[in-house]
Amino acid sequence: MPRQSRARASAPKKPTKQERLMAAAVRLFSRQGYAGTSVRDLGEALGIQPGSVYAHIDSKHTMLVSLVESGIDQYLDAVAELPGTPTEQLRHFVEAHVRVVAEDVNRARVVYHQWRHIQPPERTRIVAKRYAYEHRLRDIIDAGVAAGEFAPDLDRPTAVRAVLGMVNWCPEWLPADGSEPAEAVAAGVAEIVLASVRVGHGAAHA
Amino acid sequence: MPRQSRARASAPKKPTKQERLMAAAVRLFSRQGYAGTSVRDLGEALGIQPGSVYAHIDSKHTMLVSLVESGIDQYLDAVAELPGTPTEQLRHFVEAHVRVVAEDVNRARVVYHQWRHIQPPERTRIVAKRYAYEHRLRDIIDAGVAAGEFAPDLDRPTAVRAVLGMVNWCPEWLPADGSEPAEAVAAGVAEIVLASVRVGHGAAHA
Repeated sequence: MPRQSRARASAPKKPTKQERLMAAAVRLFSRQGYAGTSVRDLGEALGIQPGSVYAHIDSKHTMLVSLVESGIDQYLDAVAELPGTPTEQLRHFVEAHVRVVAEDVNRARVVYHQWRHIQPPERTRIVAKRYAYEHRLRDIIDAGVAAGEFAPDLDRPTAVRAVLGMVNWCPEWLPADGSEPAEAVAAGVAEIVLASVRVGHGAAHA
Repeated sequence: MPRQSRARASAPKKPTKQERLMAAAVRLFSRQGYAGTSVRDLGEALGIQPGSVYAHIDSKHTMLVSLVESGIDQYLDAVAELPGTPTEQLRHFVEAHVRVVAEDVNRARVVYHQWRHIQPPERTRIVAKRYAYEHRLRDIIDAGVAAGEFAPDLDRPTAVRAVLGMVNWCPEWLPADGSEPAEAVAAGVAEIVLASVRVGHGAAHA
């Protein structure tokens, strides 16, 4: 199979300056925030002059929009098709979410906390995508209550926020070096999430 | 009672410049991050020159340490004495935490996300206090499992992280203007938290 052999033999593609700038932006925005990162910082991370940064990007704001939007799209894609009952769907939703976080913990932090710095008109699109994600979860929870799989007296808006809290807090404790196995973490979080909404919940009124 | 009358008659104490600077720091650190806030920004918020800011504070770092440390102390104090069974203690823990968040949502954001910018030697003290809070929660969960109130097969480290996620995510959705009643929010979150750890949990393996 000469084709495959050629592909294997070729050197791994060297990242472009634009790709290296995006990687530096994830690192810097995650560590010191969007507002705390200057174009000079981005240039220094690559060993180039601040002015030269603009040869590769339009603006710091464009980089943020691109990082956050492609990030949210990743989460949306991961939960677009979820098989099974609402219980199974919720398990898959949580596991898929945690897997995306584990793939790049710093990027998750940027997606969760730096989107606030996105200005109009892009802001409208980003906020709509955040809502779409939340609604995806809300629909699963509504379906689970309707099917009798989740507690009939579940406070659904609070449940949605609680589940988002459990999964969105992962970048605060999940090691960025991959030293915790993502699959085990994802399964563990899913177990607690399912318990929080399931039937039997009512008995917690102790 | 002439004393009380005099006290009632006196005008409310005008905040000092230092107090106004701290309030501006909460607002600015919450909105644009510690690294994204300059001493010039702090001065501008009070209509004073950047140089004059140093007449009232030692440094931006000292302000951050003071805000974060007094913030963590507030959470630690709120959960220092919790009556009842582990189930009741966990309910009180969550409700007390949500109440502290609701009191000042912006400040909660600073406490949760800006502590990373605190430098040694203060950093050691702050990290120890964060651990003390987490251990307080871990002890309640351990006691609940030992007492047979929480699921015997509970993944306890993940449960601790999940509960912290549920309560620490509140500043992301709790309106800073107090338009959601804190007590109802606190009770709703506590209900979901209790469901997530309680006995019966095992049945979620659907």
